[in-house]
Amino acid sequence: MSILIVGSVGLDTVETPFDKVEDALGGSATYLSLAASYFTGPINFVGVVGEDFSKDFIKLFEDHNVDLEGLQIVEGGKTFRWSGKYHYDLNNRDTLSTELNVFENFDPQLPERYKKSSHVVLGNIQPELQLKVLDQLENPKFVVCDTMNLWIEKTKEKLLEVLKRVDVLIINDSEARLLTKEPNLIKAAAIIRDMGPKFLIIKKGEHGALLFGDDTVFSAPAYPMENIYDPTGAGDSFAGGFAGYIHKTSDFSFDNMKRAVIYGSTMASFCVEKFSTQGLEELSPLLIHSRFLEFRELSKFEDDE
Amino acid sequence: MSILIVGSVGLDTVETPFDKVEDALGGSATYLSLAASYFTGPINFVGVVGEDFSKDFIKLFEDHNVDLEGLQIVEGGKTFRWSGKYHYDLNNRDTLSTELNVFENFDPQLPERYKKSSHVVLGNIQPELQLKVLDQLENPKFVVCDTMNLWIEKTKEKLLEVLKRVDVLIINDSEARLLTKEPNLIKAAAIIRDMGPKFLIIKKGEHGALLFGDDTVFSAPAYPMENIYDPTGAGDSFAGGFAGYIHKTSDFSFDNMKRAVIYGSTMASFCVEKFSTQGLEELSPLLIHSRFLEFRELSKFEDDE
Repeated sequence: MSILIVGSVGLDTVETPFDKVEDALGGSATYLSLAASYFTGPINFVGVVGEDFSKDFIKLFEDHNVDLEGLQIVEGGKTFRWSGKYHYDLNNRDTLSTELNVFENFDPQLPERYKKSSHVVLGNIQPELQLKVLDQLENPKFVVCDTMNLWIEKTKEKLLEVLKRVDVLIINDSEARLLTKEPNLIKAAAIIRDMGPKFLIIKKGEHGALLFGDDTVFSAPAYPMENIYDPTGAGDSFAGGFAGYIHKTSDFSFDNMKRAVIYGSTMASFCVEKFSTQGLEELSPLLIHSRFLEFRELSKFEDDE
Repeated sequence: MSILIVGSVGLDTVETPFDKVEDALGGSATYLSLAASYFTGPINFVGVVGEDFSKDFIKLFEDHNVDLEGLQIVEGGKTFRWSGKYHYDLNNRDTLSTELNVFENFDPQLPERYKKSSHVVLGNIQPELQLKVLDQLENPKFVVCDTMNLWIEKTKEKLLEVLKRVDVLIINDSEARLLTKEPNLIKAAAIIRDMGPKFLIIKKGEHGALLFGDDTVFSAPAYPMENIYDPTGAGDSFAGGFAGYIHKTSDFSFDNMKRAVIYGSTMASFCVEKFSTQGLEELSPLLIHSRFLEFRELSKFEDDE
């Protein structure tokens, strides 16, 4: 009953209206693992970096009970780099540069003992690589998948193959509309669930998230944030918190999925309060549960009869 | 302890991707009153129409316990007309034509017995007219106000005068941003509450609504709607349901405001299910409460400790 996380590991240079960081730790697998680590561990981790990847980052992973047997360190290689700039309203960003480097030839190889992982999070990487990971697993019980507009536009066929094999797809509202060509999110959700995923989570940024199951919907509020310092990694932190909580509880009921969505939202809210991964580095179960309860207060109301 | 509603009454010609209606009953005071009528009554109604206003519409108001002493019927005048077309995604619309007609010289005059109204809903009309209504009231206890981008852009000074005198302002997210020049809604809410309103409701369409009070926020989900036939009047139905419920309960606590927001959302959801006012014409307390409970189910989750 272990959890496997696969995705990108990178060095991010990020500018927001508030500050700028260079070569900070980033990548989908990074945020996913750090967020999940507060609920469960050790985490079987699959990714690739170059020789330039800092020992401090390795130590950060180790401190969070992330098992690095599956981390490929390419000799003489350079780590994946991304650079972006957020606009004034923080809802939109421009990618300034992308250097794939060692990520270009990434071929996810699962160490033998990872193949028995029961829970899997397929971070946002090419659908073809997500399929390669699925093919190496013996009998995954619960597969969570993230993706992005790029793969919906460029490699839709491969993505549809992935979707047939996942339990939960997590995407944002514009991606849901892009994937289905349907502007109404409720209809889009039904179409996507017909593509395979038993559950679908649509993230709506400052408007919270929707969880769809059989004939049922759950609407999660967004945490009211006055100060978002760096939105990078929010979606991955959400998915990591969600998957980590499900792995910890091993309860696949809709009621428990709701809680997992709130824990996901909780981790995303911590993530964006600081630059890079800093918001996820020094949390505690108490802090996390206390914010979970704030989410409850935020959306709770009583019947009047 | 009576409730007064003032706003526009008009004839709407509306086209959506699904259908088209001509000269259907519309106007902010119309939707406000019909929605409020399921919670309380009689409703003191102030508005203006022309001689062409159908007797059937008069009867509809009377059937909903709307007191029409304050409805001015201008001899030889023509009723206000609006015509609009909704886009494919129903979130945006184009105004095709506006004929102010008798509304151009509307001078809201409160019949003597209306002046003692304790609860007031200032529907979306020029701030100057909203002030005229406030000036005629003896001692209003609870004033709810709606407005729109037009007045924020054209008559902001007058609007700010109104805001100093209202208890609850109800606007949508783009209007909140326009009014404050602040993209972050949580910050915008604080700025608006400093302008006067003790409570602020920000409607976010398909994303629900936020209620702000002293150091507290409530996030209301949106009802998951697959088929929105006509969004016209949704905002007014929300405000009518909200104000009607507060008037019925006479409870100004934040907990009760939360319920009122859900009843407002409930009325808005019924409104958009049919064309024009049809969705508000034949409801029942049982139907309304049953949808209220659906909202509860939609956003409820339990703690895990």
